[in-house]
Amino acid sequence: MKATVIVTLKPTVLDPQGMTIHRSLASLGLSDITDVRQGKIFHMRLKDGLPPERTREQVERLAKEVLTNPVIEEYRVLWE
Amino acid sequence: MKATVIVTLKPTVLDPQGMTIHRSLASLGLSDITDVRQGKIFHMRLKDGLPPERTREQVERLAKEVLTNPVIEEYRVLWE
Repeated sequence: MKATVIVTLKPTVLDPQGMTIHRSLASLGLSDITDVRQGKIFHMRLKDGLPPERTREQVERLAKEVLTNPVIEEYRVLWE
Repeated sequence: MKATVIVTLKPTVLDPQGMTIHRSLASLGLSDITDVRQGKIFHMRLKDGLPPERTREQVERLAKEVLTNPVIEEYRVLWE
């Protein structure tokens, strides 16, 4: 079983990395891109044959307690 | 219009960040997660009303020339 956790800065938080990328776009002639924001993505593999609630809880805990800084970031989990 | 670029290490490339996360899992009691790999995600916004081929080409160029290190990374683009 596979899960993907996407961690992004909250919309109200300034994203210096995204702004740096955005600033370099004009010099590349990519003027149609008006905004860039960077986040992190984590692909994880889980043992097969476990109860779905248990795997769900483990991935939620990992996302919440390890991968996300709740002050400035938010996360969502995608299941495959 | 929105696009998302996901940049991940090629499967053959060692991922020290993912390995560090994976190593911390046992101490958290999250033993059902067998593998973690980290990547980058970029959300971008584009001007509306442009020809699709043009926006597609701009995002592909940004992903290829700026966001990805072709020696160790690969990318894919998702459209919303």
